[in-house]
Amino acid sequence: MPLLCDIGNTTFSFSDGRRIFADKFDISSVNEVVYYISVNQYWEKRLSMQENWINLRAFVDFDKYYQSMGIDRIMVCEAVDNAVVVDAGSAITVDVIKDGLHQGGYIYPGLSALVQCYKDISPALEVSFNFDIDLDKMPKNTEDAVTYGAIDPLVSSIRKVSKDLPVYLTGGDAEKLKALIPDARVLHDLVFKGMNSLLEEHEGRDIC
Amino acid sequence: MPLLCDIGNTTFSFSDGRRIFADKFDISSVNEVVYYISVNQYWEKRLSMQENWINLRAFVDFDKYYQSMGIDRIMVCEAVDNAVVVDAGSAITVDVIKDGLHQGGYIYPGLSALVQCYKDISPALEVSFNFDIDLDKMPKNTEDAVTYGAIDPLVSSIRKVSKDLPVYLTGGDAEKLKALIPDARVLHDLVFKGMNSLLEEHEGRDIC
Repeated sequence: MPLLCDIGNTTFSFSDGRRIFADKFDISSVNEVVYYISVNQYWEKRLSMQENWINLRAFVDFDKYYQSMGIDRIMVCEAVDNAVVVDAGSAITVDVIKDGLHQGGYIYPGLSALVQCYKDISPALEVSFNFDIDLDKMPKNTEDAVTYGAIDPLVSSIRKVSKDLPVYLTGGDAEKLKALIPDARVLHDLVFKGMNSLLEEHEGRDIC
Repeated sequence: MPLLCDIGNTTFSFSDGRRIFADKFDISSVNEVVYYISVNQYWEKRLSMQENWINLRAFVDFDKYYQSMGIDRIMVCEAVDNAVVVDAGSAITVDVIKDGLHQGGYIYPGLSALVQCYKDISPALEVSFNFDIDLDKMPKNTEDAVTYGAIDPLVSSIRKVSKDLPVYLTGGDAEKLKALIPDARVLHDLVFKGMNSLLEEHEGRDIC
């Protein structure tokens, strides 16, 4: 696999495992060819002037998605042919892909954002989520009522849209959700898998 | 029905239709007997010294609920025998009542809190919810992806917990949810119905 890089608002994540804070990143530290995606507009602009940094955005067929869809979200969709992909980060995106085609998807707040959201509604709702909760039992205390309210709707909706499709979890909170969607699979490198798949398709050959 | 009052953090709501801001309320303006509930601790304390203000909290059998459960949430549960009650205010509470017994319930963020939550995650997710959305179609633009993400999980979870029970919607955002849960019934006065029901039960006679 060639060197890939997923540039977020705060971090450069390389496919070789390196993670570097965006505000500490030194362009001259990377001399090899890097295929990248970026949600960070500052770095996307700076890297557009570097010959060895190749923006995979140019390879995306946006007719398969929609224009304002996040490039990181598109990449996890590119990684699969038939699945529901749940990318649990600052937001939780849920996308349905059938026969390699994006059927649409939705955006749920991320777990940290939800904790803050409950706290902003009322200090009485400031709790840590209890990931040991049993979603088959109706809650009878505040901590469980809030955890259930944050998680069961998401899980119920994923079950509704997934039907017979497998569910893949990726992103920083994938393991937490796995505890409550036991039949789902955690695939941490889905964004790199998607980037690689797009690259292979573009180059028409196996570059792994 | 005797005079009832539901005291929130900002408003006194009377069963005769009067709504008065809590910071403008004058105790001497009400001379008749009032049965009330309050989530406003300042007013609950002040009214405890008034002979004609009777706090219904004393009539609640907390063994049927749980100690930290909001008194307004308990009242909407007292109003029904077999139903799922969805009270859509600053938070959205979903409670299951079977044969007059509270089976448990959960707390989802209110619609305004969710709009703010998405905005806090990213300015790109600041949208107005589109209540004309079709929850049977996967979204293919940001506005619909956010609306679907905020609403479909809640609706899916309500359907999961309600099974054969009817769904009653109450609270300020009841009508908005009704558009997306067409078989649910909107009952605006559920909190007063519950207060009256509790009072009847306590007095052992029909006081309507």
